[in-house]
This record gives sequence, C-alpha cells and structure tokens, in this order.
Amino acid sequence: MTYCVAMNLREGMLFAADSRTNAGIDHVSTFCKMHVFELAKKRAVVMLSAGNLATSQSVVSLLRDEARNTEVPNVYNAESMHHCARLVGIAIRTVINQHEKGQSAAGSVDFSCNFLVGGQILGEEPRLFHVYPQGNFIEATVDTPFFQIGEIKYGKPIIDRIVDYDLGLNLAMKAALISFDSTIHSNVSVGMPIDFVSYRRDSFEINKERLAEDNKYYNRLTQAWGSGIRSLFKDLP
Amino acid sequence: MTYCVAMNLREGMLFAADSRTNAGIDHVSTFCKMHVFELAKKRAVVMLSAGNLATSQSVVSLLRDEARNTEVPNVYNAESMHHCARLVGIAIRTVINQHEKGQSAAGSVDFSCNFLVGGQILGEEPRLFHVYPQGNFIEATVDTPFFQIGEIKYGKPIIDRIVDYDLGLNLAMKAALISFDSTIHSNVSVGMPIDFVSYRRDSFEINKERLAEDNKYYNRLTQAWGSGIRSLFKDLP
Repeated sequence: MTYCVAMNLREGMLFAADSRTNAGIDHVSTFCKMHVFELAKKRAVVMLSAGNLATSQSVVSLLRDEARNTEVPNVYNAESMHHCARLVGIAIRTVINQHEKGQSAAGSVDFSCNFLVGGQILGEEPRLFHVYPQGNFIEATVDTPFFQIGEIKYGKPIIDRIVDYDLGLNLAMKAALISFDSTIHSNVSVGMPIDFVSYRRDSFEINKERLAEDNKYYNRLTQAWGSGIRSLFKDLP
Repeated sequence: MTYCVAMNLREGMLFAADSRTNAGIDHVSTFCKMHVFELAKKRAVVMLSAGNLATSQSVVSLLRDEARNTEVPNVYNAESMHHCARLVGIAIRTVINQHEKGQSAAGSVDFSCNFLVGGQILGEEPRLFHVYPQGNFIEATVDTPFFQIGEIKYGKPIIDRIVDYDLGLNLAMKAALISFDSTIHSNVSVGMPIDFVSYRRDSFEINKERLAEDNKYYNRLTQAWGSGIRSLFKDLP
C-alpha cells in the first residue's frame, strides 16, 4: 500500500508520501509517489498517488506527455488548480478504461488509484484537491484543510487532534511525520523513505526533501514521540 | 461498524467493545456486542463480535440455544477454550450458509462476521481466539497477546506502542480506552457506550462494566490524553 497526506494551511502547503509499493508480499519495492510540476515564479503543482501503480504511473506519464504539446490543455498551461484537477481526473479515467479492456471476465484486478493534487498558480490562492478513481474530486477548505490517501487510518488520529488551518508549516510537518511514524509502526506495507514537500504561500518555490531511514531529525523526532507517549501514558489518571 | 479489542496478559484478560451499529448512515443504533457465558468458579467465557449484526446475533442465539441441551457439546460443557472457539466457528458457518440461501443472484450483502472468544475453563490457562467468518481461528500468544476486530486501524498505533504480555491489567485497561478514544474521534461509525470486562487469572469472576458518555473517569482520562498529546507535540524537537 501507500500512505500520503497533503495539507493546505494559512502559511502554505505540505505534501508527504511514503515510497513502498507491494504487489503481493514478495514483491515489495521503492517507488516515488510524488510528482512535481513547476514553472519558475508562475506555478508550483505537486501530485501524490495511491493505488494501482501501473495506473498511477501511466497517469503521470500521460500528463507529462500532454505537457509537451503547448496547444492542448495541460498541467503547465491550465488556467487554475481546478482545471489541473480536472485534467488529472480525465487522465485517470483514460488510463483505467484502457487497462480494463485487458481484464478477462474472470479477472478481478483493481485498477483504481487516487491522487492528491495541490499547489498554486499565479493569480490564484493555493488549492488542494483529492481526485478519485472515477475522475471526480473534492477540494480542501479552511474547515478540512488536509486529505489523506492509501493506508490513512493509523495516522489519522494524530492529524485529527493537531492539524487545523492556522497551524504553522513547521508544526504541520512534525504532525505529518508523526502520522507517518504511527502508520509505519503498525503497517508493514508503508515504509521509508518519505518524500516531503513544503511550499510557502506565494513563494512559487517547492522545497523537496527525501527522508531516508537514517535521517537524524526523523529518528530524533520519532524517538522523542515514542518515549513521550509512553511517559504520558504512565502519568494518566 | 464496530471496534472491539481483547487481550490475554500475564495478570489476566481484558475485553472491550463499542456499541454502535449502522446499516447505512440513517440507521444507527446501540447494540451490545459483548456476550458473557459464566459458570460460577468453573468457567468464564466472553465473546465480542464485529460484522453483520444479523449474523452475529444469530450466532450468539444459536450458541445459547445449544447450551440449554446438556447432551450436545456447548459453551458450558466444552472441555477447553479451543473447543469453545470451534463451536463458535461452526455456529458462524451454520448461520452464514443459512443466510446466503436468501441472497438473490443480484444481491451483494456481506453476511460475514468475526468473533473474539476468550476466557478460562477450570484446569486450563486463560486463552484468547480470533474466529474468522470462515469458521477457522487463531490464538493469541505471549508474543501477540491482543486481537482487534472491526474498525481496528485508528486504535492500533497506541496499542502497538504500549501493550505487551507483562503489562498490568489496569494499565492495559487505560491503553484500551485510549485506543477507543482515538477511534471514536476519527470514525463516526464507532461510538459510546463502551462495554468492558476485566478478568483476573484463575478468579473465574467476570467484572463487567458499561462506560457511558458521561462516565467521569473516561472523560478525565481522554481529556488528560488529548491535552497531554498536544503539549508533548509542542515540546518535540
């Protein structure tokens, strides 16, 4: 599986994705599920994907192919983030329809995948969308400023408790990392490294980082969290 | 949905179940998912159920009906907890096979349900089983002393971090309640009251309690946990 989370907060946006995929337990690999589309000072778009890897890779390839032709609508010339989300939805439907033709009557492969699509286009506020396998999508709001896809449940309680629209970007990053730590602890299908993007509103600069297993900050953070939880637990009434 | 957790620890056993069921979002009700079978000083058996309510209620009715006839093997005369788990497995298969006959070709009702079956029979150690819809089952061990069924993921990280075989019963109860709090916060299909049983090894006495929404200890505990988590979070590196 996969775990991805994205947030659209007052200060800016944040995207994180693990990099483990598995097709059966004997076919575990590392694949990047984070895809960046950037135009200096004009647009910063990040996509995270969860679900069938063949589908999500094809969707991203299709979007990148389209982007080479400036005459068709694509992620680099779409007039809004809403339009970008629509393009991703169309690409998902195109790929799934294609792949389903190869499905035999007896087959039961799930070709579906979900995308989180977020970023900022010059002239617009930062926006974040969750695009479903059906191609439709919802947008994050001040009330619900984050979306998760993949193995979302283990890491949801901590985000539910901590994250709101006014949380600073650095604190939001901590919350996201702890939510990854909880997920990785409880589910072997989610694993390091974690790809991470933070984006400050109106900066049009994407800061991308990959946190590997030996990342000192991540280890210090998760150890402090683990021992903090245990001592908090001991002190409870 | 449902959330149930059961533990078999050095000091004894612990069972907890929420009481919310829903058949669609406009059909939410309160049903007890905890079923106790007791023989003074001889056996103490507790069952928790998750899944199709029609199935799990019929399974328990069937087991109680069987128990009236002392000539057939039943929960009150089974020679071991393993035998009890087998009886539950057989009852699940009987009920599901029956209900599936009523399924039209176009229907797609999921009749399955899972049971946690635990307790102690005089002459045996306390034992805990997870019985699957297929009627087969696994047993908890010193290495993996707890099972969860239903909406298990939200509450798993805290139990993974805290619970091991040597944890005292009172601490285990705290961990279970916090795991319920996390689940209830993040998933509306799980709700109060919580039915709770603690069982001290070799006591053959089941202490059953129902924690309602206005339970003072539960509220104090979950508030301390919530604010503790937030301040722990603030102090992280």
